[in-house]
Amino acid sequence: MSEKIYVGVDVGGTAIKVGICNADGQLLHTYEGPTEASKGTDTILQNIAKYAKQIVVESDFEWEQVDGVGVGIAGFLDIPNGIVKFAPNLKIENVNLKGYLEQELNKTVKVNNDANVAALGEAWGGAGKGIAHCVCYTLGTGVGGGIIIDGKIVEGYAGMAGELGHMAIVPDLEAIQCGCGKMGCLETVSSATGIIRMAKDAVERGDRTTLSQVEDIMAKDVLDAAKAGDEVAIRIVSRAAYYLGKSLAMMAIVLNPQYFIIGGGVSKAGDFLFDQIREVFEKYTQDQAKEGVKIVAATLGNNAGVVGAAGLILRG
Amino acid sequence: MSEKIYVGVDVGGTAIKVGICNADGQLLHTYEGPTEASKGTDTILQNIAKYAKQIVVESDFEWEQVDGVGVGIAGFLDIPNGIVKFAPNLKIENVNLKGYLEQELNKTVKVNNDANVAALGEAWGGAGKGIAHCVCYTLGTGVGGGIIIDGKIVEGYAGMAGELGHMAIVPDLEAIQCGCGKMGCLETVSSATGIIRMAKDAVERGDRTTLSQVEDIMAKDVLDAAKAGDEVAIRIVSRAAYYLGKSLAMMAIVLNPQYFIIGGGVSKAGDFLFDQIREVFEKYTQDQAKEGVKIVAATLGNNAGVVGAAGLILRG
Repeated sequence: MSEKIYVGVDVGGTAIKVGICNADGQLLHTYEGPTEASKGTDTILQNIAKYAKQIVVESDFEWEQVDGVGVGIAGFLDIPNGIVKFAPNLKIENVNLKGYLEQELNKTVKVNNDANVAALGEAWGGAGKGIAHCVCYTLGTGVGGGIIIDGKIVEGYAGMAGELGHMAIVPDLEAIQCGCGKMGCLETVSSATGIIRMAKDAVERGDRTTLSQVEDIMAKDVLDAAKAGDEVAIRIVSRAAYYLGKSLAMMAIVLNPQYFIIGGGVSKAGDFLFDQIREVFEKYTQDQAKEGVKIVAATLGNNAGVVGAAGLILRG
Repeated sequence: MSEKIYVGVDVGGTAIKVGICNADGQLLHTYEGPTEASKGTDTILQNIAKYAKQIVVESDFEWEQVDGVGVGIAGFLDIPNGIVKFAPNLKIENVNLKGYLEQELNKTVKVNNDANVAALGEAWGGAGKGIAHCVCYTLGTGVGGGIIIDGKIVEGYAGMAGELGHMAIVPDLEAIQCGCGKMGCLETVSSATGIIRMAKDAVERGDRTTLSQVEDIMAKDVLDAAKAGDEVAIRIVSRAAYYLGKSLAMMAIVLNPQYFIIGGGVSKAGDFLFDQIREVFEKYTQDQAKEGVKIVAATLGNNAGVVGAAGLILRG
């Protein structure tokens, strides 16, 4: 029989991205269509199935070659049963996504959350290719996470594992409340939102910073100002890097991964940010737990989701 | 063929404990002999082999029923190859323990470190029986740890996973240096050693406490004084419980285990300690990550090591 292929679907609030991977995690084709979330659950489900078929039709592959279809989606899931319990940005509630798609597509379907899937994408076909043990951070609006042990996603007892952004890592004295309701989560300081908040606080406090001239501060403004030598911005970025580095140090001693893979918008600051994370990591990690361990940048960008979704079939 | 049995060996500095388990992790027999560490590596190795044979001879089982022999040992190990790189308390260096025993016993042999093995013992045949995802803490001289996912020990890239006592969890402002050389490790506050240190510091500082009348303060003295209402002791115990609880909260969101199993001498303080840990855990853990999650006491005591060592054959 001819080569097997793996279809990955990344369901976002506005667009559904679909990709075809080979067994090595290489992305061969992509396709994108509107989610049409406003039209309701049925339309969303139909679109997922339609685009998954469409990408294969448009490719040189036959439908028979499809070994399975993986889906990444943001929300609370019953992972083993592929049920979306609640996806706030899609307004989907208690939908058996796996059941619907298996009937519609007549293929094995696996469903997992967007952060786990992005981590698997990087571990399977991106920066962690060939590396069995990876811990992945995505520094975006929040801090997403995913843990790969022996090449597979760690889901935990109730599918809640890997939520690295909600480690209560900031000490009480300087902690603020996170969107999740708890105090001192990593994402209150190390996400784009956290960086923007610290910058706005500084401006409001009247700290002397070039950021006070920026109309609507974005995380990139803060990172650029820090690179340009603005002391307030430097302090903010080093705080974000400090708690990230401490979190990596804890993960090193708890899980001893070979690679830490860091992606997301904030990570585009590059070595300026990575060097600070590495310095903190170095300081707080025992020698045996950091020997041979690397902190690397994610390489797949926005494609991590479709690659990881496709990877669910072999590695989920 | 008759029932298979599993032999576990727990190599300590003064005694070698051996046990026979059935496939359910039930401990059927135990045997103990001197390590004779002062006589050197050869004698230690011969004793391990001798006691492993001896326990089967003394039991109603036949040697043919032995499916394998597992060994737990404190030190730096090359786990996949069963090599003891360095065991400080036994003065063993670069010994192929697995190779020696497989030749000597003509059975499959697996080797792992004492903390991982104790965790597996509790997860397989103790407090976590039937539970696939467990995180275990042993509060003794140090804080040992072990992580069980899908019923198996998480070893990590270089066998360093599960060292929960060395999470850098104490904030810099109040951190002291750990025996490992790093600052702020959990075991600087939540081990027996940490509790004793905080008590001695309080006495030296002249704090008003009944502990100032105790000649040689042990952790139990501090726990007993706290239970009796001594405010200084209460403060010390609640600090130990606080960082433990925070560490559990982080593990809950990172690994989402179903059970946290806490053992070791300090854990004998019972609900007085556990209630405080639970309160902190409750405060810092997101609802979804604590739903159905239990914090329970270890049940095997000193037998966790032999049971877990025997468990290496099926679960290692």
